[in-house]
Order: sequence, then C-alpha cells, then structure tokens
Amino acid sequence: MIVFGVDPGTARLGWGVVEKKQPATVALAYGCIITPQSQTPGRRLATIYTDLKKLLKKFKPDCLAIEELFFTVNAKTAIPVGEARGVILLAATQENIPIASYTPQVVKQTITGSGRAEKQQVQRMVQLLLTLKTIPKPDDTADALAIAMTHAFTKRFI
Amino acid sequence: MIVFGVDPGTARLGWGVVEKKQPATVALAYGCIITPQSQTPGRRLATIYTDLKKLLKKFKPDCLAIEELFFTVNAKTAIPVGEARGVILLAATQENIPIASYTPQVVKQTITGSGRAEKQQVQRMVQLLLTLKTIPKPDDTADALAIAMTHAFTKRFI
Repeated sequence: MIVFGVDPGTARLGWGVVEKKQPATVALAYGCIITPQSQTPGRRLATIYTDLKKLLKKFKPDCLAIEELFFTVNAKTAIPVGEARGVILLAATQENIPIASYTPQVVKQTITGSGRAEKQQVQRMVQLLLTLKTIPKPDDTADALAIAMTHAFTKRFI
Repeated sequence: MIVFGVDPGTARLGWGVVEKKQPATVALAYGCIITPQSQTPGRRLATIYTDLKKLLKKFKPDCLAIEELFFTVNAKTAIPVGEARGVILLAATQENIPIASYTPQVVKQTITGSGRAEKQQVQRMVQLLLTLKTIPKPDDTADALAIAMTHAFTKRFI
C-alpha cells in the first residue's frame, strides 16, 4: 500500500510518500511545494494544484492522508490552510484517490505513543521509523511523512 | 465590464453575473451550485470546480468578486468555506480572471449605504438595483449578486 501524506499550507506544502511493506514501511519520496509570497493567493493555489497533480500521477498512491484542521485554531490561520486543503481534496478526488484525515494528536499518538509529544520527538521518530540519514526538512516535509505513516499504521477513510 | 460574483460555500455556492452598462448595471444570469451532503468533501469540491469552470468559460467575466472571510467567525465554519474558496480562486486563476475580495461590511455599505444593514435590506436593494421581479433565491444567490455589484460599483483587486 502506497500512502501520500500532505501537511497543507499555501506558503509551504509538505508531502511524503511511504510504502507499507514487510518488514518495514519505507519512504519512496518526500519534499515541499514552496510558493512565493509575492504571488496572488490564486496563483499560489494554482502552483500547488499543478505540482500535486503531477506527484499523484507519478506515485499513484492508494490513499492521500491529510492533517485534519483543528477547530480551535484561530480563523485567520485556518483560512489559507483551508484554501490549500480545498485544492488538495480536489486534486485527490479528480485522481480517484481516497482521502483519510487525521488530527495532529492522532498523528503524535501513532508515531510516538503519546498524543502530547513535542514536534521534534515526532520528527525524530519519522527519521527512525523510515531509517533516514537525517530528519527531512523543512518541518512540513517531516510532518507530511508522519501523516502518511499514521495512515499506513492505522487506516481510516473519510 | 462583466463581473462574476461568488458567495463561497461547500453545500451551497451562490453565483451571479452582472454587466456594468449605462444607464444601469444589469444581471446576465445567476444561480446556486448545490452539492449533496451525502458526498465526500472532495467530491463536493470537484462538482464546484467543474460547474464553476463551465460558468467562467461561458460568461468570460473581467473579474471574479468574492466575499472576504471574516477573521472573527469561528474556525469550524471557516474551514469548509476556506476549502470552497481555495477551489474558486484556483478556477478563476486558471481562467486568467482577476480576483477582487470584499468584506460583508463593504458589500452592505456599497449596496445599501450602511455597513450595518440587515441581510434582507441588501437583498431588496439587489432586486431594486437590478430591476428583478423577485429577490433571487436562495440567499446565497442574492448575496453573490450583491458582491458582483459591489465590484461593479467600486473596483478593487487583490
């Protein structure tokens, strides 16, 4: 099973592809779509859409796993993330890829054993579980791999 | 100048097209894209994207005017609206249509003369200014026409 994990954002969109295999889950690829602040929101979303479609066509994942937005964060942050999330859900649906959604707490719990783990602890576990030489950078990329692994370990669809 | 107004939402997306002419601005068409609650968020966004693209190709507006999200609304409501907004900004950008954004307060101020006007007052003015036989329904449609007219009257781009 191949899982495409996404940490949504308009400025930086982290992505990571993992394959669930025996004896271990492995990272196939990972990266970050960065869009310049000088561009209009529409242009940035168009870049995200085009780049994401290419990646989904390339890796043909069985599922796209995405961070579920917290309802407690402030609306100012929620809006651009929501906009990016809309474009991601659209791209996955157009490619007939099922979508699974996980809260940050569930991701932390699954990857580290504690829903209250620090961000760095999650990232170290990502490195360890995928036997990577370094922690993937930026944080958004490591977070995307954590989300992908959460799905590989638990499976849940929306 | 042709303006395509949008009141964003995932369940109901109101739209209205107006043309600024002398002696009066007229409505070319208006309606509402309704998506069933039984569908996944991704499927609903895909319907919005497809329908909206068709409308933009048909009317070839000079601008898409959209409601600017309030930063004070709760994040729970902001997320699905943000997702729809992302897909709308994407569709307009792909069609090379400039985007203008207005707060509900500016819309009310422009259409009725008061930023604190009631929703019904805005809708009555939409009917009056566009000389329509009835108030367009649902509310989302009337709101979309109000946003389109706000741009036709004031012009502002993001």
